[in-house]
Amino acid sequence: MGDVRHPGEKKLWGGRFAASPAEAFERLNASIPFDVRLAPYDIRGSIAHARMLGRCGIISEEESARLVRGLEAVLDEVESGEFRWTLADEDVHTAVERRLRELVGEVALKLHTGRSRNDQVALDLRLFTLDAADRIRRGVLEVMRALLEVAEANRGVILPGYTHLQRAQPLLLSHHLLAHFEALKRDVRRIEAASEAARFSPLGAAALGGTPHPVDVGMTASELGMEPFANSLDAVSDRDFACDLLYACAMLGVHLSRMGEEWVLWTSQEFAFARLDDAYASGSSIMPQKKNPDAWELMRGKAGRLVGDLSSLLITLKGLPSGYSKDLQEDKEPLFDAVDAVLAMLAVLPEMLRTARFDAERMRAAAGGFALATEAADFLAARGVPFREAHRAVGWLVRRCEELGVSLQDAPREELVAAHPALGELPRELLTPEGSIRNRRSAGSTAPESVERQLAAAREYLAGVRVAERGAER
Amino acid sequence: MGDVRHPGEKKLWGGRFAASPAEAFERLNASIPFDVRLAPYDIRGSIAHARMLGRCGIISEEESARLVRGLEAVLDEVESGEFRWTLADEDVHTAVERRLRELVGEVALKLHTGRSRNDQVALDLRLFTLDAADRIRRGVLEVMRALLEVAEANRGVILPGYTHLQRAQPLLLSHHLLAHFEALKRDVRRIEAASEAARFSPLGAAALGGTPHPVDVGMTASELGMEPFANSLDAVSDRDFACDLLYACAMLGVHLSRMGEEWVLWTSQEFAFARLDDAYASGSSIMPQKKNPDAWELMRGKAGRLVGDLSSLLITLKGLPSGYSKDLQEDKEPLFDAVDAVLAMLAVLPEMLRTARFDAERMRAAAGGFALATEAADFLAARGVPFREAHRAVGWLVRRCEELGVSLQDAPREELVAAHPALGELPRELLTPEGSIRNRRSAGSTAPESVERQLAAAREYLAGVRVAERGAER
Amino acid sequence: MGDVRHPGEKKLWGGRFAASPAEAFERLNASIPFDVRLAPYDIRGSIAHARMLGRCGIISEEESARLVRGLEAVLDEVESGEFRWTLADEDVHTAVERRLRELVGEVALKLHTGRSRNDQVALDLRLFTLDAADRIRRGVLEVMRALLEVAEANRGVILPGYTHLQRAQPLLLSHHLLAHFEALKRDVRRIEAASEAARFSPLGAAALGGTPHPVDVGMTASELGMEPFANSLDAVSDRDFACDLLYACAMLGVHLSRMGEEWVLWTSQEFAFARLDDAYASGSSIMPQKKNPDAWELMRGKAGRLVGDLSSLLITLKGLPSGYSKDLQEDKEPLFDAVDAVLAMLAVLPEMLRTARFDAERMRAAAGGFALATEAADFLAARGVPFREAHRAVGWLVRRCEELGVSLQDAPREELVAAHPALGELPRELLTPEGSIRNRRSAGSTAPESVERQLAAAREYLAGVRVAERGAER
Amino acid sequence: MGDVRHPGEKKLWGGRFAASPAEAFERLNASIPFDVRLAPYDIRGSIAHARMLGRCGIISEEESARLVRGLEAVLDEVESGEFRWTLADEDVHTAVERRLRELVGEVALKLHTGRSRNDQVALDLRLFTLDAADRIRRGVLEVMRALLEVAEANRGVILPGYTHLQRAQPLLLSHHLLAHFEALKRDVRRIEAASEAARFSPLGAAALGGTPHPVDVGMTASELGMEPFANSLDAVSDRDFACDLLYACAMLGVHLSRMGEEWVLWTSQEFAFARLDDAYASGSSIMPQKKNPDAWELMRGKAGRLVGDLSSLLITLKGLPSGYSKDLQEDKEPLFDAVDAVLAMLAVLPEMLRTARFDAERMRAAAGGFALATEAADFLAARGVPFREAHRAVGWLVRRCEELGVSLQDAPREELVAAHPALGELPRELLTPEGSIRNRRSAGSTAPESVERQLAAAREYLAGVRVAERGAER
Repeated sequence: MGDVRHPGEKKLWGGRFAASPAEAFERLNASIPFDVRLAPYDIRGSIAHARMLGRCGIISEEESARLVRGLEAVLDEVESGEFRWTLADEDVHTAVERRLRELVGEVALKLHTGRSRNDQVALDLRLFTLDAADRIRRGVLEVMRALLEVAEANRGVILPGYTHLQRAQPLLLSHHLLAHFEALKRDVRRIEAASEAARFSPLGAAALGGTPHPVDVGMTASELGMEPFANSLDAVSDRDFACDLLYACAMLGVHLSRMGEEWVLWTSQEFAFARLDDAYASGSSIMPQKKNPDAWELMRGKAGRLVGDLSSLLITLKGLPSGYSKDLQEDKEPLFDAVDAVLAMLAVLPEMLRTARFDAERMRAAAGGFALATEAADFLAARGVPFREAHRAVGWLVRRCEELGVSLQDAPREELVAAHPALGELPRELLTPEGSIRNRRSAGSTAPESVERQLAAAREYLAGVRVAERGAER
Repeated sequence: MGDVRHPGEKKLWGGRFAASPAEAFERLNASIPFDVRLAPYDIRGSIAHARMLGRCGIISEEESARLVRGLEAVLDEVESGEFRWTLADEDVHTAVERRLRELVGEVALKLHTGRSRNDQVALDLRLFTLDAADRIRRGVLEVMRALLEVAEANRGVILPGYTHLQRAQPLLLSHHLLAHFEALKRDVRRIEAASEAARFSPLGAAALGGTPHPVDVGMTASELGMEPFANSLDAVSDRDFACDLLYACAMLGVHLSRMGEEWVLWTSQEFAFARLDDAYASGSSIMPQKKNPDAWELMRGKAGRLVGDLSSLLITLKGLPSGYSKDLQEDKEPLFDAVDAVLAMLAVLPEMLRTARFDAERMRAAAGGFALATEAADFLAARGVPFREAHRAVGWLVRRCEELGVSLQDAPREELVAAHPALGELPRELLTPEGSIRNRRSAGSTAPESVERQLAAAREYLAGVRVAERGAER
Repeated sequence: MGDVRHPGEKKLWGGRFAASPAEAFERLNASIPFDVRLAPYDIRGSIAHARMLGRCGIISEEESARLVRGLEAVLDEVESGEFRWTLADEDVHTAVERRLRELVGEVALKLHTGRSRNDQVALDLRLFTLDAADRIRRGVLEVMRALLEVAEANRGVILPGYTHLQRAQPLLLSHHLLAHFEALKRDVRRIEAASEAARFSPLGAAALGGTPHPVDVGMTASELGMEPFANSLDAVSDRDFACDLLYACAMLGVHLSRMGEEWVLWTSQEFAFARLDDAYASGSSIMPQKKNPDAWELMRGKAGRLVGDLSSLLITLKGLPSGYSKDLQEDKEPLFDAVDAVLAMLAVLPEMLRTARFDAERMRAAAGGFALATEAADFLAARGVPFREAHRAVGWLVRRCEELGVSLQDAPREELVAAHPALGELPRELLTPEGSIRNRRSAGSTAPESVERQLAAAREYLAGVRVAERGAER
Repeated sequence: MGDVRHPGEKKLWGGRFAASPAEAFERLNASIPFDVRLAPYDIRGSIAHARMLGRCGIISEEESARLVRGLEAVLDEVESGEFRWTLADEDVHTAVERRLRELVGEVALKLHTGRSRNDQVALDLRLFTLDAADRIRRGVLEVMRALLEVAEANRGVILPGYTHLQRAQPLLLSHHLLAHFEALKRDVRRIEAASEAARFSPLGAAALGGTPHPVDVGMTASELGMEPFANSLDAVSDRDFACDLLYACAMLGVHLSRMGEEWVLWTSQEFAFARLDDAYASGSSIMPQKKNPDAWELMRGKAGRLVGDLSSLLITLKGLPSGYSKDLQEDKEPLFDAVDAVLAMLAVLPEMLRTARFDAERMRAAAGGFALATEAADFLAARGVPFREAHRAVGWLVRRCEELGVSLQDAPREELVAAHPALGELPRELLTPEGSIRNRRSAGSTAPESVERQLAAAREYLAGVRVAERGAER
């Protein structure tokens, strides 16, 4: 497969200093090594522009049609991989136009009418952003589906909830997984906000002040499924939409890093709460029980680049005056890098989640023991015993049980009463993980009926999304 | 030599290493030196909680009333500055409770019922975020009002638009200012998104799994003008809302840094487009004409801390497992720092904008000259002359004018015709800044009627906001 | 104690928007709320400057003496906390000069001679940086001493080494602790590099081009224990030294976050390798065995602000032209914040390390088991068995042992031979943690004699440092 | 519509979600798309290892020789571009070994002896870092040579020095350029520090605890021009050296962004201090006088990615426990990205500097005028007039000259005397840019003789470097 380059290829530093000054400048200046990715968006924008030019009578309908046909032919070449890119083209726009002119002749130059590089490159990045946001959103929803499925399939499985990585209280695994579901819901909102920000077409802003040609900015915008810009100077200067998507990616990356950390813990020998499917772990030929949670570690590690990519663009934008500056060429690579990293993770997550296996017994065992002591204290508090007194009593009881070598649940009744008279009535069931969980009362809690409601809400959310998408496709 | 600070300053490093281990740990661990700011929010949350406990019968109505009265008294002390904070209190919650107990006695301990530090601290930061977002939003709107006023007051003033900081095309100053108006509109949206994210009450999540007490999470939430949380584990782990506000601040900071750079340029002797009012510049006792644009430089410079603050929290969150970890104590200071920096800038901007003076003549002069050559090329293009030919002809004309030492506008007719026959019909008016501007046709352009429409839209936007606020207050 | 402010004090946002424009600008512009910390350095620099002015005959010796005495009196006031700061002073330099003038009269104005705010503020920050670097360096060395002591005190304790958080191989705890010792050695180097960068006095650069007064830049520099600057424009523009210290702090913070993560794991119930002393953990009144590793979590979490602080300053510096710009006022707070955070952590670490207790048995047990299978494979490889064949054989053996329910060490000889004939000669001792460790041969490995050499080298390093410091004090 | 990229591009997102789970995981997990760059270093490290294995008798001398010959053949293939990489190889080490085995047969497997992926990958990145640091260092030195040449060629050219971007004082252009020379000297030191940090070979650390084979870690290290590691666990966990180089790149990037900002200003029509050679600017076919300073804008803009890359790695490292974690795979791309960006800039800078042209007259004119008023004040101060009085007098004089419409230099003598009697003796020459510059006295100032000394020091520095390099090559 041709997916990988020889180290002497694109980034050959051997000859770098040997290159002529002009070559060195060309290398520095050219964006084509990376903005080649924008070609389909660039062509799509040009097609919309060419159609508008014809309909508005700025060029003839026949010229318009020739431009559109030519652009479609270039798009075919690009999509089939036949297009030949060269560094001399400098940027993707030049490359596309060069080819268009080879195909349709001088009329190609009319495509410039009422348009400039400045609005064109802004449009390309906006179309890319919309597309990327859509893919990421779908990827996140797919992870949410997987979380929900795993939560439904593991009803009743109990694990310890932690604070300070100290066992604090039993939780339903479904509840735990749904916590991440909530975080991802917020990610979906952020991604949608980035889409909304990107959904303004800058075409017609031209260099920065608008164009003398009677272009119809609403027509190109609507052809592209966008709204027209409000202010032409802002239209060529604005890169907020790219930052918005980078921020959404960074925050999503932070969420995935938090899941990653948990799964690295869960799959350690010390926790041993979960096992990954062989397809998602690298192993050892000697120790078949050993599985490295590589993918989860990468989820954790990639937060670094995602936060870094966000910083990169914000820093590049800092202190730039209005209007196009070449600095803005630096807007693409961090965005591409972040989008690729996020999509690569999202592609792996759903099946990795679905195929993982939990050791319910081990998890339940870890959730029991003295972590349940707060139940006894809460029981006393509910009976009007002052908080501090309740704590003191249960603390004494815990130490007593340790001395006796019994679990809290099996503490002799006389010890309970000795700790505090009111503990005599304590239902022992409360001191089991299941009892503790059932004993939660607040909405949104880890109690089984509460978790069922959360599962139902999650199903409804995903169903609503599906309906919305079907509606959008029509 | 021993360095020293004035008494009462927060971070005294004299003696730090001399401190006992316990003191050093206490210092590291205590959040009270900074979370003291959260006191009013903490008390407000406690009042809502106390009311709910009473109404739900978890404590008696009378106990509830005593708690509420006591908390209100503490709030008074805090607001009047009488409250005495000590490092021994460790955090703001402890301090408030200590004082409450001094005022109302043992019933103070009942405030713990059905609540934990984990949901309480999350609530405090959410209430702070809501309040801060509201203040920042109003501050941004005030800047927008000022931009609009200045744009309206300077109708007809022309300045050069730049690309690559090279003069490119005349623009209306109003149009330029409205470009920043658009950017700030997006900032308002981001700030509102942060508010929406913060508007979920975590009360009732308790430590992480909910509480055995029959608390009504909807009641406390609605008392605080919030919605209840969906998942208790998420409720104590989530800090997205703080990141959302930090991101909104960072992006706003980047926008202000871009304005800052422009004003630093405009007030330089080389540009000399604008002068700041004396109240907003530091000067020189010798050179009365010299004014340092300190505030604008700070607008530019503060983008650094704002992006840094955003990074700080994202990094702290990276890789944290679900549930409360002490790392989360680090969520407050970057948020406080960013909010303070943004509010300090917003407090200065509106009047600084309103009181600045523009040198319209100098700006217009800079906008003329050969920058208008594109007009001639566009004129030819609109007459069907191929782009490249038009460019060649006008390039020749420009060089000719330079040789003759005349401006483009004053070029002899025979030179125009020599450059290209069609230029004989070129209306000379097109070669003036005003003509160039009037010649823009696209919606959103810098043409006077387009800018009028943008001004009207801006007025409408601000009017709509005012109505919405008035509605919200009822 | 007066260490904590009421929330309505320094950062009162109530009145922020109510403030007059001039007040708002003053607030934004004034650095005195934070640069008050620089007072001792500012005065020290002024004393050196005043002495030089006198010795060079730029002012009279008598004037010089009066200035020095006055400055020393101001310093006394500052150090004793009697000095009264006001926001109206705007910055620390003005405050000090105001007071100096009150004390010594008009001669105070002569202190301006041959100096400007630009070189003065750069000097102050350099002196602060030198002092801070020195404190941090000592703090790091103290942590290294503690690591060494703990390593020496726990000779022979074995824990599992991890890759991917999967148990990989037994390690000596001493070896593990010395790995962090090595990282801190690199931190010391970075801190020293920051010191070296800071050790150039900018006094004499004046505003940016030098001064017409015949100042002796070498004299002030040497009075302050510094070298003179080389280029006056660079001297007022350069903030590299502050970045260098911020980077050293960020990298140190990352190292501490890695230690923090390990200790959070080690003190969890699942690992249970170590227990913190009560003085360094927050506990639960109910569950006496539960200890939250708060300080270690903060070590982990504070990496966020440290990396953020570094970014802040780099971003502020980005794109600034040479010469002083007001943006540079933003150089102080990130540096102060980072230095305070680092010193607070360093103050806690040594004793926290020294007082922690390890559960050697539990650690050793975790280090055994099938993690030792690689020993068997290495044994075969050393006998010329091809790697892959060796792996296959041992993999078979491990599965066999699992079926039989025996540990590798106790595998029946016939099973060993069945796996591979050469395994018949395998010394069983190799399959114990101790055997595995003793079996390491490479220098720098975890083998006991190698670790002894590392301990000796560590002792020598610290002894060398102590000698160097004693030398420097003379 | 389906977006498409040209064939052979790395990140094809068409089909990403269609890929099988295993493929998605493989894509996420594989480092070969980027670590292919490490191949030459990987092979060099393997050759050193193979030689050591033979000399230490761990494998036979004949096996060692066969391995070395095979590796050299692989290196040839890599360097000539014949090597065929596939994603299935997963990482560069596997790819090289696969090919080695094809060439030399089963003996290839012996290369594993006493080595693991963990020490191998750490070595590769260290060798890359050493090489990159060396190239960057040479590139920076070349920029310094160019700065020096331009400074020498433009002796006597005067420009205004700025504070707050307000003209403050005349400076020699040579002095200004040498300020950047100083900054780059510090960059050289940081790059050298990164090299020193990278110069430790981790070979022999194996997975993390060392190896049972009697390897000689000193021998491999010295074969590679390195020192051996001190602690095997640290050797596989440490990525400080990569951070050190990233920091050096970020700081260098900040310096270049500051130069970039200045040149963008200097080449604007408003400043018009300098013109770039056509080879280093993009122009306009219409406006021949217009040149966009693209390369300088990129110098300014690329600071964003450089600071972002540094953050990326620091964040990835945050909170990682000791020993290899897959997160560390994320160490490569930010480093590659930063190194490439820096080298691309350095390749352009020297010639761009050398070929730029200055408008000495315009610069001198901008440096004159009322900016010289401080000279008059300094003159008075030097005569014992109190500072404030001197300032008041000169301020009055400046306003008077404005009224009279004369320059300060041409002010009538009676006006001078009216301002302050002592001004009667003021040498008029002081009020010229040349006079002002000659009037500086402090070492390191902009005075001609001071600048000559600085030029001499710069020449000496570069000569010293050249000698050192020649020495090192022997």
